[in-house]
Amino acid sequence: MKSRFIDTLEVYDGSQLVSLRNYLKYQMLGDSVVSWVGPCDVKTEHMIDGEDLLAGAEIRGEQMLHFIAELFDSSLFAAVGVQRLLASIVKDVLQLTSKEDAVVSLLRRDGDDIYSGDKKLSISIATQSPNSSLIHFAVNVVNRGTPVPTISLQEFGLDAKTFAHEVMRRFCGEIESMREATKKVKSAR
Amino acid sequence: MKSRFIDTLEVYDGSQLVSLRNYLKYQMLGDSVVSWVGPCDVKTEHMIDGEDLLAGAEIRGEQMLHFIAELFDSSLFAAVGVQRLLASIVKDVLQLTSKEDAVVSLLRRDGDDIYSGDKKLSISIATQSPNSSLIHFAVNVVNRGTPVPTISLQEFGLDAKTFAHEVMRRFCGEIESMREATKKVKSAR
Amino acid sequence: MKSRFIDTLEVYDGSQLVSLRNYLKYQMLGDSVVSWVGPCDVKTEHMIDGEDLLAGAEIRGEQMLHFIAELFDSSLFAAVGVQRLLASIVKDVLQLTSKEDAVVSLLRRDGDDIYSGDKKLSISIATQSPNSSLIHFAVNVVNRGTPVPTISLQEFGLDAKTFAHEVMRRFCGEIESMREATKKVKSAR
Amino acid sequence: MKSRFIDTLEVYDGSQLVSLRNYLKYQMLGDSVVSWVGPCDVKTEHMIDGEDLLAGAEIRGEQMLHFIAELFDSSLFAAVGVQRLLASIVKDVLQLTSKEDAVVSLLRRDGDDIYSGDKKLSISIATQSPNSSLIHFAVNVVNRGTPVPTISLQEFGLDAKTFAHEVMRRFCGEIESMREATKKVKSAR
Amino acid sequence: MKSRFIDTLEVYDGSQLVSLRNYLKYQMLGDSVVSWVGPCDVKTEHMIDGEDLLAGAEIRGEQMLHFIAELFDSSLFAAVGVQRLLASIVKDVLQLTSKEDAVVSLLRRDGDDIYSGDKKLSISIATQSPNSSLIHFAVNVVNRGTPVPTISLQEFGLDAKTFAHEVMRRFCGEIESMREATKKVKSAR
Amino acid sequence: MKSRFIDTLEVYDGSQLVSLRNYLKYQMLGDSVVSWVGPCDVKTEHMIDGEDLLAGAEIRGEQMLHFIAELFDSSLFAAVGVQRLLASIVKDVLQLTSKEDAVVSLLRRDGDDIYSGDKKLSISIATQSPNSSLIHFAVNVVNRGTPVPTISLQEFGLDAKTFAHEVMRRFCGEIESMREATKKVKSAR
Repeated sequence: MKSRFIDTLEVYDGSQLVSLRNYLKYQMLGDSVVSWVGPCDVKTEHMIDGEDLLAGAEIRGEQMLHFIAELFDSSLFAAVGVQRLLASIVKDVLQLTSKEDAVVSLLRRDGDDIYSGDKKLSISIATQSPNSSLIHFAVNVVNRGTPVPTISLQEFGLDAKTFAHEVMRRFCGEIESMREATKKVKSAR
Repeated sequence: MKSRFIDTLEVYDGSQLVSLRNYLKYQMLGDSVVSWVGPCDVKTEHMIDGEDLLAGAEIRGEQMLHFIAELFDSSLFAAVGVQRLLASIVKDVLQLTSKEDAVVSLLRRDGDDIYSGDKKLSISIATQSPNSSLIHFAVNVVNRGTPVPTISLQEFGLDAKTFAHEVMRRFCGEIESMREATKKVKSAR
Repeated sequence: MKSRFIDTLEVYDGSQLVSLRNYLKYQMLGDSVVSWVGPCDVKTEHMIDGEDLLAGAEIRGEQMLHFIAELFDSSLFAAVGVQRLLASIVKDVLQLTSKEDAVVSLLRRDGDDIYSGDKKLSISIATQSPNSSLIHFAVNVVNRGTPVPTISLQEFGLDAKTFAHEVMRRFCGEIESMREATKKVKSAR
Repeated sequence: MKSRFIDTLEVYDGSQLVSLRNYLKYQMLGDSVVSWVGPCDVKTEHMIDGEDLLAGAEIRGEQMLHFIAELFDSSLFAAVGVQRLLASIVKDVLQLTSKEDAVVSLLRRDGDDIYSGDKKLSISIATQSPNSSLIHFAVNVVNRGTPVPTISLQEFGLDAKTFAHEVMRRFCGEIESMREATKKVKSAR
Repeated sequence: MKSRFIDTLEVYDGSQLVSLRNYLKYQMLGDSVVSWVGPCDVKTEHMIDGEDLLAGAEIRGEQMLHFIAELFDSSLFAAVGVQRLLASIVKDVLQLTSKEDAVVSLLRRDGDDIYSGDKKLSISIATQSPNSSLIHFAVNVVNRGTPVPTISLQEFGLDAKTFAHEVMRRFCGEIESMREATKKVKSAR
Repeated sequence: MKSRFIDTLEVYDGSQLVSLRNYLKYQMLGDSVVSWVGPCDVKTEHMIDGEDLLAGAEIRGEQMLHFIAELFDSSLFAAVGVQRLLASIVKDVLQLTSKEDAVVSLLRRDGDDIYSGDKKLSISIATQSPNSSLIHFAVNVVNRGTPVPTISLQEFGLDAKTFAHEVMRRFCGEIESMREATKKVKSAR
């Protein structure tokens, strides 16, 4: 599985969640994850979470750390599981690398969301393209421009790029060992 | 999704990881998870993890808390993801309910295993039957009879049954919200 | 499985056969079926039955009882089977609730169509969206505006809404027991 | 799709529901259905319906008309739908060919079962083999030896072999047109 | 499987690689292959091979023999295999029917491409539509208008239409016997 | 994809075609192919080709070059395609490396078989295990002990081990580029 941090200020507006983007833009063939830091402002036309659409939700943030992962040979149900493992990994890295015990001790994962107390740290969606699974996961770098009470990497005292590298390192290890796990177990009756 | 704690002292020997067991033994139809406390002694003939077979591993423990989950409409890759989410939930419940800070602070999930420092808390396997996915996950209740250095619920000061109920409550919520997540997202191009 | 009769006069023009419509419009999550009474006038651009397109068919009716069902975790082949079971249920409900023996005695199902003698009662199509199966099934409430000789609920002496409720009640029972049937049978060699 | 009536008195004991049987015994390659008249006595070791196993059900009859169908490129969910369509076809053929109005007028399909009033006409199971779907469907030819109140082809005044041919003719037409239906519809968004 | 050579001069521009085209244009239902001789000029908007898009490739030829195949009940991975078998068949037919030993002796298949020495004979792509697999395969009839050094049926001394018929005859036989092969083998443990 | 030539004289009796064998015996995880030279004598109980079973075929040879490949994330239909590509590769390697023009010029592939004139060079079967596809392909090293007229590597003047290495090198390249091809193409409508 390939990973890469991109030095760009690109706005995430939802149009980026399309199949083969990591390959066509960054020559990353197969399972992959890219990340970058940039604003988030998802346009309604690119909003794909039915729950958000029903709620008329706004999905915004002035500066977020974005991850876009693409997985092949995967169903949507599997991708939703992988998305939550990514959330779990993000929480683990915060717990291991942040020294801000007050916010760390309140961390919890609820489905694909991460909170510290009542403040939301992240947004995420998993979907299926005709030939792959796609995941967007983003973490606030600062709290400006968010439509709900949030917490950000700033309060955790963490640098976004360093954090991104550690999350991607663990995520790639997770996916690779998951693939292997499907190839070394006998089936049951 | 149905869950149930069973009052039995049944030995887990690997023969229990077969499709429809939760239905045929406990009338639990569909996605389900059962748990109980009993010895663990997996016979080679029921060992299905190729890695264990290659290593000639022993899978034993005098008293473990067992979980057997069965999921339908799921691939093996998805089941491996679910298995790791279950490990993540077990770790979360330990962190939230145990007061033994020394062992809690050393907790980490590595794939489908949970450790506190170098001591292993759990064993697990996920496999596919012809019409379902099956997961066995077990946590040491005591450290006796284990072939490697282990840690157990005892050091965490936790009662196995209470712990089992909380893990299953969260696990069922996880699976149910995962199923829902696949039914409310638009597909991507 | 959720069902709902909608009090609307909406024209069915084919654009309604899209994934997640029952959820995004009526908050019905998961397997679902909605019905309503309204005109039918399928535009060529929304016509998806290749046979109709080859024949240059017109799909019209001044007043029809429409059903739109969405099923998850289903293939197109399965959906075509479900569509025909829906036709079979419609025929059963006509036979059980109509007192008009002359038209009832001539009822027959031919694939996904229902006829009384040579007169056509219904139209239907089943298709696949990227993450679900979709079925449109419609029954003439009156015979006006149809491009071929038709029969309608009027000749059967039946009220469309009452009829719709009974069809949906049986259809939901059918799907639910089908789902269960896949979760309680042992596989074969 | 191939069909064949076999002149044999073979007892159906459940061991016949295995993949490739129609091919290996009768050279019928691909989707196929065979039928014959013989006793039914399903041994517990070959019983695969979990509901029957839980209930300790007996599956017997002195003389039944058996159908064994095998379908390729089909899921278990699709096969359960096909099984119910087969039940629907059996009911249709009874209604069209029997002159015994008293028993015909009480006919109803309930899932994969057919009843006339409270008397059971048929038994059935659908399952999945590693590379195909398998369906057993059987109709009482006489009422002797059945563990529950039954009705049989005798009360319908019908000859088993003639009846079998008409059922298989319609069933093959159904499957063939279902396969075609999946190859001439445009997908939805 | 149906096949047909079409007498047309249609330009292949990439827009032809859509599901159901062989059915909607030529009434060929199910697995099918059509061929014709015409120019090739794939517009960027219809280019689907990511490698071509990354390389800014031109896909052109003044006169090529085109094949468009559509297969149902097939994955993209299977379609890529079928595509390479088609390339293999094209090579076999060249070897068997051409008398031009110099170019024949240099023939080789490399993935889905065919070369004679360093000269390229063919272009090809396999993709997946929502309900089928699609393959475009084209062989130069003459060398004019191609962006790279090419070889054509002219050097092999072969008539395009005769060649097309033989290729399609073998290809249909291949697919039909592949389908059969999946229906007469027992599964493994 | 991993490959390995094994120095053993093991008899191939059909029992070797089981999932995970390359992993459990040779630590080769994931897609893999092994080969060795040894007798062939497939016992009826391990014969899985229905055609052979119907014909009462004997599958024997005193010395054959065996290949066993296992592929994950593959359907049986895809595996049958891969099996024929392997046959095609075997034929290509014979054509490129043998100097025996008389037998080379008569080479042809017919489905999964290779012949030189009327003499059979190879045997093969592809099947599906619960979590993988399995292929056995074997080429006569000598003609002794075969139940039909055969040709062998001896007539081609080729050393079995050298030949095996070249076949596996090309086969691994084929599978790897096939996997890649599924991850760089846009889907069609």
